[in-house]
Amino acid sequence: MSAPIPVLAGDEAGNGLPKESTGPDKPVQEGAVPTTSSLSSKVWSLFLVGTSFALIFNAEYDPLLACIGFSVLAYVITSVSIPILGPDFVRVGFAGRDLGKKHRPLIPETMGAVCAVVYLTTMFFFIPFLFYKFLVTETSGGGNRDQVLDTSTLHKGRSLRMFPHSKLAEFLAALLSLFSMLVLGVADDLFDIRWRNKLLLPAIAVLPLILVYYIDFGVTLVAVPPFLWKMLNPGVESSLPPIVDVGMFYYIYMLAMAIFCPNSINILAGINGLEAGQSLIIAIFLLFNDALYIMPGRILGLHPPPPATEAHLLSTYFVLPLIAVTAALLKYNWYPARVFVGDTYCYFAGMVFAQVGILGHFSKTLLLFLIPQIINFIYSAPQLFKIVDCPRHRLPKLNTETGLLEPSRVYFESPPRGLDLFLLTALGKVKLLNLERDPDTRVIRSSSNFTLINLVLTWTGPLREDKLAVVMLGIQIGCCTVGLIARHTLAPAIFGRDNL
Amino acid sequence: MSAPIPVLAGDEAGNGLPKESTGPDKPVQEGAVPTTSSLSSKVWSLFLVGTSFALIFNAEYDPLLACIGFSVLAYVITSVSIPILGPDFVRVGFAGRDLGKKHRPLIPETMGAVCAVVYLTTMFFFIPFLFYKFLVTETSGGGNRDQVLDTSTLHKGRSLRMFPHSKLAEFLAALLSLFSMLVLGVADDLFDIRWRNKLLLPAIAVLPLILVYYIDFGVTLVAVPPFLWKMLNPGVESSLPPIVDVGMFYYIYMLAMAIFCPNSINILAGINGLEAGQSLIIAIFLLFNDALYIMPGRILGLHPPPPATEAHLLSTYFVLPLIAVTAALLKYNWYPARVFVGDTYCYFAGMVFAQVGILGHFSKTLLLFLIPQIINFIYSAPQLFKIVDCPRHRLPKLNTETGLLEPSRVYFESPPRGLDLFLLTALGKVKLLNLERDPDTRVIRSSSNFTLINLVLTWTGPLREDKLAVVMLGIQIGCCTVGLIARHTLAPAIFGRDNL
Repeated sequence: MSAPIPVLAGDEAGNGLPKESTGPDKPVQEGAVPTTSSLSSKVWSLFLVGTSFALIFNAEYDPLLACIGFSVLAYVITSVSIPILGPDFVRVGFAGRDLGKKHRPLIPETMGAVCAVVYLTTMFFFIPFLFYKFLVTETSGGGNRDQVLDTSTLHKGRSLRMFPHSKLAEFLAALLSLFSMLVLGVADDLFDIRWRNKLLLPAIAVLPLILVYYIDFGVTLVAVPPFLWKMLNPGVESSLPPIVDVGMFYYIYMLAMAIFCPNSINILAGINGLEAGQSLIIAIFLLFNDALYIMPGRILGLHPPPPATEAHLLSTYFVLPLIAVTAALLKYNWYPARVFVGDTYCYFAGMVFAQVGILGHFSKTLLLFLIPQIINFIYSAPQLFKIVDCPRHRLPKLNTETGLLEPSRVYFESPPRGLDLFLLTALGKVKLLNLERDPDTRVIRSSSNFTLINLVLTWTGPLREDKLAVVMLGIQIGCCTVGLIARHTLAPAIFGRDNL
Repeated sequence: MSAPIPVLAGDEAGNGLPKESTGPDKPVQEGAVPTTSSLSSKVWSLFLVGTSFALIFNAEYDPLLACIGFSVLAYVITSVSIPILGPDFVRVGFAGRDLGKKHRPLIPETMGAVCAVVYLTTMFFFIPFLFYKFLVTETSGGGNRDQVLDTSTLHKGRSLRMFPHSKLAEFLAALLSLFSMLVLGVADDLFDIRWRNKLLLPAIAVLPLILVYYIDFGVTLVAVPPFLWKMLNPGVESSLPPIVDVGMFYYIYMLAMAIFCPNSINILAGINGLEAGQSLIIAIFLLFNDALYIMPGRILGLHPPPPATEAHLLSTYFVLPLIAVTAALLKYNWYPARVFVGDTYCYFAGMVFAQVGILGHFSKTLLLFLIPQIINFIYSAPQLFKIVDCPRHRLPKLNTETGLLEPSRVYFESPPRGLDLFLLTALGKVKLLNLERDPDTRVIRSSSNFTLINLVLTWTGPLREDKLAVVMLGIQIGCCTVGLIARHTLAPAIFGRDNL
């Protein structure tokens, strides 16, 4: 029996009556998300919805078509929902001030939660389409369309015999991990979970997925480059590609991926459009890589299709809706941002990447697409692990006179010495840090902060926020392109084969 | 790039640095959850943790032992977490004033979220134990312990052949539905979703479960009482128990269950201890009913065990941890409440009930345990559907002089007429409402509100909040007992058989 305090609008559980949001507690201007609800944008939305329904209801035996349809729908729903829900998010406290702008406007935060909810709901509706052919018919196996039997001939009350339960379990486990990340992300945005604790929480979130991996694949084999193989086993000759069973360590490696992906995206962040932008680029490259495997079977009619096709199809089903909701989010998060994405978004997107890498057994390829994140993590390590002083904020600083962003700096209270001094001097020498020294004593007074964003700014000089975002995303595209090419040229050369 | 507004303590996503919660923004006194952290309670907790580990690590081939162990652990973790997290919940706005007390103290709200997170995390760790025998060994089928093969003899990189993927999918789908309800519950506690919208949202949450039901059982057969069968099919004689395939309607019925269970618990609420108390009682009766099926096989060694054993074991695995987290929550929610459970708890508990009913195919038995909720729903309907005026709060009112709760009333602006008047008069006649009439004109001025709690108060007279809770829970126990007895005496008589 309770009444609301002002922070929580509305009333407490217990009367079960219609709760209309009351007028006065809604902020009128601040936090509102300006939106272009022009006629043309409405027509465009309607057109997209029509297209998506056309795709979904004509998909029948082709889950990929349904997935494209659902993704288009997810894009429209996210686009429409963000401006509608923005003020509500601000009202309940999901809001932050944009320090990159002169007047520091208050805008909604944690909008990644909207993306995640739309994404997961979409997936719920997608499941029956993914298994359509098994649900309406019982095939003779192998999915031959011409030999299907109608459900009316099936024995009622028994399980559909050919149904791929292991694939369903895989899909459900993946969704479960994503739900866990959503809950974890929202909890972090609400409560600011301590850094040390939240680092490990994705490992719990990914448990169901790893269990399913153990049950369904149990593959802990890793290809070893022949030259390395020869070095380690001199004298032994083998015509087979050298493969080593790493056992247990493969599971530890998967846990590490699940921890690394969400957190690494979360720390390469802080300027408008960067979190959503980098995720969008990574997702598009993953999709492109998937297409390389799927196309031969679908377009060229190659039979049988390459062995990794199934895994990459599954990856596509997870990546496509992510591209859709991220594109919608980026529209509002791009400079000048009208919403923030929140930790929720970074965790969620990172977890999607981690799990397609795990389920598709192509986590090394994924790591090639995450090069900027890896560099940023390694570069940040001295501050993250407190070898060098770490200020509370490491975001670039706005110069209010020029309107440009400049590298933020860490000021040392006592002169650095030992490992500290060595690191600073060494990195300063190779222009990986911008150091400020006392003109007389040459003692280091301050340094630019250890983030990739600050590093780029020390190289390019002050930039406007959107230009900086473009440069950062350009680096992402460059690294992903190099990674993709390396994957399909260098890797085959090293490992002696490609699985395309 | 942003800074926090005061509502959100801590900083924005983007620097990835350790975030320590800062001192000053924590409320010092209000919202703190008093706790008895005496030495004896600590010893007790340690003893329970020890017991749980002993159970879990000796469970081996018996998931039930592991489940009991995990439940004990969940109880301890929830007990410890609630007082620790309480102040954080208040800080971010999950707080409400207790209107049933004179000074209306501010206490943490939505603590059901803690229960749900502990419950789900427990379940994540429980999965490997549930499938232990399939993971470490490959049996000859039927789970014969003496014919197990070691995993080392299994072919690496292939799926474990005997693994019951359909059971795993079932379990994962159930957890997915629960995660959806957690997200929905928290969203409702945060944003106060409109009544009409949230009524239907559980139907989306339950989709994966219904899909799995379709795939794995597809049973849409319903037993019909022989006398009804004879009435409907005069002349047809059959020795088989009359069973009808209701097809499609069974799925609609399951959706309805998923909508009804969470919402019905959520509207029979509003006094300290009632939400958690009623859920605890229902859960215990479900467990007792499960035990009736499981015991013959386990204790009496009946072979083969009754056919419904598997379904009721699954039900037990979901109900036991719910009992554990609910018992811990109730300690803090009982009069005088130190925390509120929130819509989150009601939805979550309701969904656990709905899904064990669905997966165990015993939803009619479940409905017998929900009689007070059904009565309250029907009784509330005139106000819920706005046939009769409905005030914003329908909770009982505290008489600050006596310290007792009295029925809350709805005052009519215009004299009731038509259906409105008919309903009021009829219910007033049979003492199901307390009406107040104008002494001169006999026009109805006000009526007690249409909730079971108010009805009980009009019958018993004013009660202190804890006495009222005891009366309400007494009614729950009474109804559940009658329901359980009816299930195993009356039902066999009507249907001509029991499945025990």
